[in-house]
Amino acid sequence: MKKKGFLIVLSGPSGVGKGAISKQLRERDNNLWYSVSATTRKPRQGEVNGVDYYFLSEDEFLKKVHNGDFIEWACFCNNYYGTPKTKVLEMLERNVDVILEIDIQGAKKVKENFKEAIFIFILPPSREEWRHRILKRGTENDKERELRLETGEIELKELKNYDYAIINDLLINAVRQVEIIVEVEKLRVFRYLEDDENEWKFND
Amino acid sequence: MKKKGFLIVLSGPSGVGKGAISKQLRERDNNLWYSVSATTRKPRQGEVNGVDYYFLSEDEFLKKVHNGDFIEWACFCNNYYGTPKTKVLEMLERNVDVILEIDIQGAKKVKENFKEAIFIFILPPSREEWRHRILKRGTENDKERELRLETGEIELKELKNYDYAIINDLLINAVRQVEIIVEVEKLRVFRYLEDDENEWKFND
Repeated sequence: MKKKGFLIVLSGPSGVGKGAISKQLRERDNNLWYSVSATTRKPRQGEVNGVDYYFLSEDEFLKKVHNGDFIEWACFCNNYYGTPKTKVLEMLERNVDVILEIDIQGAKKVKENFKEAIFIFILPPSREEWRHRILKRGTENDKERELRLETGEIELKELKNYDYAIINDLLINAVRQVEIIVEVEKLRVFRYLEDDENEWKFND
Repeated sequence: MKKKGFLIVLSGPSGVGKGAISKQLRERDNNLWYSVSATTRKPRQGEVNGVDYYFLSEDEFLKKVHNGDFIEWACFCNNYYGTPKTKVLEMLERNVDVILEIDIQGAKKVKENFKEAIFIFILPPSREEWRHRILKRGTENDKERELRLETGEIELKELKNYDYAIINDLLINAVRQVEIIVEVEKLRVFRYLEDDENEWKFND
């Protein structure tokens, strides 16, 4: 049986810190490959094409949608976001594990097509801390913040459809937990067994 | 929901090094509790009663069997082996995770009664190394050794009923893998959710 990599889907409501965890995972020496999303939104100050996002025109993006080039895609605040398929599949074939950091809706779509993916839900340590983090970001007014929190509360109900939950209290712990989840998933018996005979084969 | 510990069953054929792994696990600071088995086999050089095993006479052993004092017991290579029940259940109630190092038959019996136990199969790195380890131990005569190896080959077929497999090549790696399996199992979503409502509850 040829060993293949697997998808690790990091998801969770807005403000739980999944972006911070992904960023750390990318910077560490852990044999994980981080999938860069495509978007039609304009680059912000300091954002680099191919690093933060693949920045596409709407025409380019929709052509890719039409060609089935995305694992999942969505329109959010008048901009399109999507996960390019080709590179991800190539990495999985090469036995490299791939991190996808996506929202709850995107994760649902991935689950339909990648049965063997691992789904990790990021939780805030407390409701108060969660509010505090969204407040600190300072990009929303009170009403918008309340809406985000309410949406988040609803999204929490999706937890039961995930494999693992990580409480993002201390960032470095959360990052390490993602890494050991990947390591331990490789020890699962079904990954050791030959497809047909369900039996262990020695090399000698 | 009151948090309870879980059983971690370390098993595998004779000579794969599950004893060495358990011994290391016991000596490390990892919040695992090691269940000492009872046996009617004679102590090997240096083995201590109550540490390596509870060494019992056949009469004593069978009386405990009669009283239902064992989680599992089995006769293997003409000796009885069993896992004393009381202390294990007490530790699980106290939210302590318990390591059981037992043979394949014993593991099967545990599986019938502890649905939430985690089953780890220890594999030798190669057939040659496996033979070499049993030979090196020098605690059995030729006939016993052959019996153990033949039994072992058959026991390998049980791998498919386990959750995880660890190839015991470098001892310290195998020990660490057991530890991170336990850590990662605690992150599984079903351990976070309330029994009835299948929902995440914040403390605040």
